[in-house]
Amino acid sequence: MKLTFSPASPFARKVRIAAIELGLIDKIELIPSTLVPGQPNDEYSRINPVKKLPALILDNGEVIVDSYVIVEYLDELAGGGKLIPASGAVRWKVKSDHSLLQGMLDSMLLCRYEKMVRPEPLRWQAWADDHWNRAWNGMARLEKQAEMLSRPLDIAQIARGWRKAYPKLDAFHEKMLTRPSVKISVPPPA
Amino acid sequence: MKLTFSPASPFARKVRIAAIELGLIDKIELIPSTLVPGQPNDEYSRINPVKKLPALILDNGEVIVDSYVIVEYLDELAGGGKLIPASGAVRWKVKSDHSLLQGMLDSMLLCRYEKMVRPEPLRWQAWADDHWNRAWNGMARLEKQAEMLSRPLDIAQIARGWRKAYPKLDAFHEKMLTRPSVKISVPPPA
Repeated sequence: MKLTFSPASPFARKVRIAAIELGLIDKIELIPSTLVPGQPNDEYSRINPVKKLPALILDNGEVIVDSYVIVEYLDELAGGGKLIPASGAVRWKVKSDHSLLQGMLDSMLLCRYEKMVRPEPLRWQAWADDHWNRAWNGMARLEKQAEMLSRPLDIAQIARGWRKAYPKLDAFHEKMLTRPSVKISVPPPA
Repeated sequence: MKLTFSPASPFARKVRIAAIELGLIDKIELIPSTLVPGQPNDEYSRINPVKKLPALILDNGEVIVDSYVIVEYLDELAGGGKLIPASGAVRWKVKSDHSLLQGMLDSMLLCRYEKMVRPEPLRWQAWADDHWNRAWNGMARLEKQAEMLSRPLDIAQIARGWRKAYPKLDAFHEKMLTRPSVKISVPPPA
């Protein structure tokens, strides 16, 4: 299998960490890909029309998107129920927490594009504030549900945001950083 | 159960259609909610910190997000394997197609916000073009895989975009519009 990848993409990083934790990383070739918002990339659009990282290209040529479906697919390949509980209330808790984190990451990226990629005179502070608050409110929610941080490793933990200022999340972040799968994929400085 | 809802949200509409198709709509109370990009909504942020529609509020107070996880949850409530195949290659095809459509909808919404919500002097044409092309390239991909349109009803079909100019997709759209679950939820004119 091949995985389109950039060290700057938190979604690609999540899949890489999951593949390591599931023991599948040796079966996956990472394909470096560079995508810039506001710039076309026809070659990549042929792989994933919505121009997002990562995409998993199977040996038969089928392409699986997005990062969450890829992790579900890898989890099944590894036997199932590893990073996503197979049943019960905890299954929906993990999936919903993961979606919350996914939404937080989306908002963080939109903030980053607004503040660093969009031409300076075209920036809209209210939009950046709105998305910053979404990520921040999400962190506040997670800080309150500390039980999430003590569950066995799951996909929601892997996808967690890592802002400071929330002591339980910060302590959890430090613990996560001791895992080899996390250490190996620390993104380059912005 | 309660579902936060707006007739203008394609993601809320998808869940509503799915609930009707699964025979669960009578168990769901729709809670009208209005969210405006760039404007805070503290009350809604307490339900879903990332301020997105829809959210499913269970009778025990637990909140499930996002639209896809809600549909998976409802599908399981209805016995499983209804709108999302339970196993095999078709499961991953449906899930990946759904993610593609989800990404297309995200891009369409970003286009719409750029062209209609953001103050006019702050609009960035390259960003709007980029997201327009993502949606358009996605339509081209779907037009080529007409087999998707003849599968039994699934979550990817429900979530499909509905631009004109692609004849097979357009014919499929007309057929979908004859379903009561789709007809009832046609969004108001922009």
